Amino acid sequence: MGYSISQLARVLGLPYQGDGERDVTRVSSWQDADCLSVVFKDADSREPLPPCALRAACIIAPQSLVPSGCTAIFSERPKLDFARAARILAPPPAGSGATHSTASISPGAVIEHEVDIGPYVTVGAAKIGRGSVLHAGVVVGDGCVVGEKCLLHPHVVLYPGVQLGDRVVLHAGVIAGSDGFGYVFDGEVQVKFPQVGNVAIEDDVEIGANTTIDRGSLGTTRIGAGTKIDNLVQIAHNVEIGRGVVIAAQTGISGSTIIGDYAVIGGQVGFGDHARVEKGAVIGSKAGVLPGKIVRGGEVYWGIPVRPLQEFKRLNALFGRLPQMKEQIDGLKETVQRLEAELEKLRDPK
Amino acid sequence: MGYSISQLARVLGLPYQGDGERDVTRVSSWQDADCLSVVFKDADSREPLPPCALRAACIIAPQSLVPSGCTAIFSERPKLDFARAARILAPPPAGSGATHSTASISPGAVIEHEVDIGPYVTVGAAKIGRGSVLHAGVVVGDGCVVGEKCLLHPHVVLYPGVQLGDRVVLHAGVIAGSDGFGYVFDGEVQVKFPQVGNVAIEDDVEIGANTTIDRGSLGTTRIGAGTKIDNLVQIAHNVEIGRGVVIAAQTGISGSTIIGDYAVIGGQVGFGDHARVEKGAVIGSKAGVLPGKIVRGGEVYWGIPVRPLQEFKRLNALFGRLPQMKEQIDGLKETVQRLEAELEKLRDPK
Amino acid sequence: MGYSISQLARVLGLPYQGDGERDVTRVSSWQDADCLSVVFKDADSREPLPPCALRAACIIAPQSLVPSGCTAIFSERPKLDFARAARILAPPPAGSGATHSTASISPGAVIEHEVDIGPYVTVGAAKIGRGSVLHAGVVVGDGCVVGEKCLLHPHVVLYPGVQLGDRVVLHAGVIAGSDGFGYVFDGEVQVKFPQVGNVAIEDDVEIGANTTIDRGSLGTTRIGAGTKIDNLVQIAHNVEIGRGVVIAAQTGISGSTIIGDYAVIGGQVGFGDHARVEKGAVIGSKAGVLPGKIVRGGEVYWGIPVRPLQEFKRLNALFGRLPQMKEQIDGLKETVQRLEAELEKLRDPK
Repeated sequence: MGYSISQLARVLGLPYQGDGERDVTRVSSWQDADCLSVVFKDADSREPLPPCALRAACIIAPQSLVPSGCTAIFSERPKLDFARAARILAPPPAGSGATHSTASISPGAVIEHEVDIGPYVTVGAAKIGRGSVLHAGVVVGDGCVVGEKCLLHPHVVLYPGVQLGDRVVLHAGVIAGSDGFGYVFDGEVQVKFPQVGNVAIEDDVEIGANTTIDRGSLGTTRIGAGTKIDNLVQIAHNVEIGRGVVIAAQTGISGSTIIGDYAVIGGQVGFGDHARVEKGAVIGSKAGVLPGKIVRGGEVYWGIPVRPLQEFKRLNALFGRLPQMKEQIDGLKETVQRLEAELEKLRDPK
Repeated sequence: MGYSISQLARVLGLPYQGDGERDVTRVSSWQDADCLSVVFKDADSREPLPPCALRAACIIAPQSLVPSGCTAIFSERPKLDFARAARILAPPPAGSGATHSTASISPGAVIEHEVDIGPYVTVGAAKIGRGSVLHAGVVVGDGCVVGEKCLLHPHVVLYPGVQLGDRVVLHAGVIAGSDGFGYVFDGEVQVKFPQVGNVAIEDDVEIGANTTIDRGSLGTTRIGAGTKIDNLVQIAHNVEIGRGVVIAAQTGISGSTIIGDYAVIGGQVGFGDHARVEKGAVIGSKAGVLPGKIVRGGEVYWGIPVRPLQEFKRLNALFGRLPQMKEQIDGLKETVQRLEAELEKLRDPK
Repeated sequence: MGYSISQLARVLGLPYQGDGERDVTRVSSWQDADCLSVVFKDADSREPLPPCALRAACIIAPQSLVPSGCTAIFSERPKLDFARAARILAPPPAGSGATHSTASISPGAVIEHEVDIGPYVTVGAAKIGRGSVLHAGVVVGDGCVVGEKCLLHPHVVLYPGVQLGDRVVLHAGVIAGSDGFGYVFDGEVQVKFPQVGNVAIEDDVEIGANTTIDRGSLGTTRIGAGTKIDNLVQIAHNVEIGRGVVIAAQTGISGSTIIGDYAVIGGQVGFGDHARVEKGAVIGSKAGVLPGKIVRGGEVYWGIPVRPLQEFKRLNALFGRLPQMKEQIDGLKETVQRLEAELEKLRDPK
């Protein structure tokens, strides 16, 4: 499968210069490029453009950065258009209707057309939408709904009742619908609070390897459309994540916390329960959000507990200057003692 | 399966008012309640009780919060009794004796009655106790002992020799018995220290999805009865966790650390090796406990490294006031310089 | 399988005393030792040596710590030589050529001699080197290369194209080759940046349970020979880890970060992207390394963000003394005000 450069430029809706008839089949880094590769030059990269004689068939870059004579597609957002080109040259895989002979599928399952089911897959009385792909060892519990063109990598586990929208990508080892972590101490033992709610993951969500998403205790744990979640993230029961949110690896979100649309969350962040992050807030890696805390939108936060970035930076700088502050205090103490003595002498010259 | 309200009240040992003949089959949130639902009103919740005309069949609440005419079971600990009601209405699943045709069971395995074994389960020369359920893809190594009525969710892996008590629940992706992380550097390479110990998980332990528990290097990694552990937690070799402990998600416990009975550990906490947490200590989320540190019981700790909560709060408040402290120091310096000059003038008026 | 003590001493290249004809079959802790056990006494352990009448067949210890009459192998590095003895008595398992009947192996796969393949293993058009062992549920994608004598524990997933050297050990649930976490926001949605690179794991690497290693976006994520990685670690796309590195549990390394040879990284450490850790640097648990930061070699670092340990200790001590600093400032303010008033009186005695 390939495109000529002129075709690719047309699909991207961008102008090009040079040899439009060249075929391209893949995107590459500069190092790995060959005569079938598309590469890109980031608008704000400071590295000089390597000589056009390099091996790539075509570069995506701002026109101002492209020497004449070089075959290129012009873009003011080259990284974005390179990502779009990658999707055009290699669209996400879709099923073709193949079910591996070893798969175990409940008679109650409803499998639509063009679904691929790999070896050792278990599907309960669930519905699998058209064009979805279930890789080796995937487990889909009773009552689950998997939308169209979903991609479930090996060993994904959906507990009963989990709902996926369309084009959801779950990487290997993702677990959705496990019991939330709720107990009531009766004075002797921890009595399990019911974990009988659900998980709903909307369209175009992508979730990284070994991430865990608990079902709601009584309601629903929800992940909004277009949200992207990295590896080893923990989403607790009844969390509600909005649309277009980005959450980096190893972040943990406690029960009933709400993350607003388009928030951007770094890695290893921790959220207490019942916190609320407003739309568009940005939270730096390793930050800690206290239970019940409201994080205002449109700002950047940092630290444990979180503070606005400017405040955090000031405090952190002062933290680094504690030795000097201590010295200044000690110096002041000495001077003040001396002044006191001198004043005493002045007042009472004997 | 259902109970009438009068039956449920009797099993709970609680008084009720209203229509005792109504059937209830499940617990619900207020939002999802229907005419077969039990709901609850927390004693300290500030939300007003919704009108009793609401759809639930029965509310569990303190008598003082229940309007007359409303069918209710009276409880001074409604959240606890709601949890108890949930267990009565939906007891934990137990096996019925079904083994899936695809399971791979060693001739040396001893499988007791009423054990359910799902698709693609591998059982080595191990013992599986009566009424236990092994879901799809579970792996039980040679020499393992699984007690009675255990519930192993999909893809749980027990390395050889792991011991589970009765009623242990392991959520999907839990791995117990993996090698501990121990090496001795010989000046050129890291030589693996032997990891030939064991893992013992006692009765009524529940462990969350994708949590990992390493075997002892030479001794045993032990998790005491009734302890509850959340998702993505790391328990290193030779850790000893007491009874009734609660550990939230993404916490990591280094080798040979001891956690006393009924300790409560937040999420993303880190413990250095050979630390010791005394009975009943409470450690806040994201805290860090240094290697070898002893954390006293009956108190709440916070911070990296951990400090008693009151101390932590005071320090954190002062941290936030560093800019003011700096200003005060600068102001003092100015004033003192002025005083010095004035004193000089007084002493030597020329 | 066993060795006489004299044989074991000869293979270790160490002197011994006592009954060289005794057989030993395993290493043990003191508590678990029996008449076939080798135990060790650490050179710097302060515990007294238990009476030699104890059950062990042989102790590995410095000669100065061994009473005469006790059967012992003398070592100045007893922990290291005990680890070496463990490997001699129980060499890593190697395959014998057994393939389980339930395994699913692509016709395009190349399986060398003495490879063991367990139940429900899926092997694509990949190459598996001589003597390797693939436990239950392992998934090896198309184009993968697994070297010789590798050990893949249950449910390891290698996405297509992942390369393993020889003697690589991957614990249960390890996922290598999952997509990196890269998106470009087009103003409305997060467009996936291509994740078409690779993963290369070199000889003698060991990786802990449920750790995730993303493929390079365009290049390669690389883990150098002899590196040891603990459980639940996240290695992002295009990370490069050197040789002989040690990384403890739950650490996360963001995209394109470089970790130099022989670095030692604690648990729950977080690295921003494009950071660089120089050869031999030591980074304490829970530390945070900012994006782009260079961490110099040959030193110990601590804190968020990381600082040299000595500086961190000083700052942390001063942080704990903030209340005293505040008191001193308040005291100084009072004194200075009094001095001001007294000075005023002196200057203007009316």
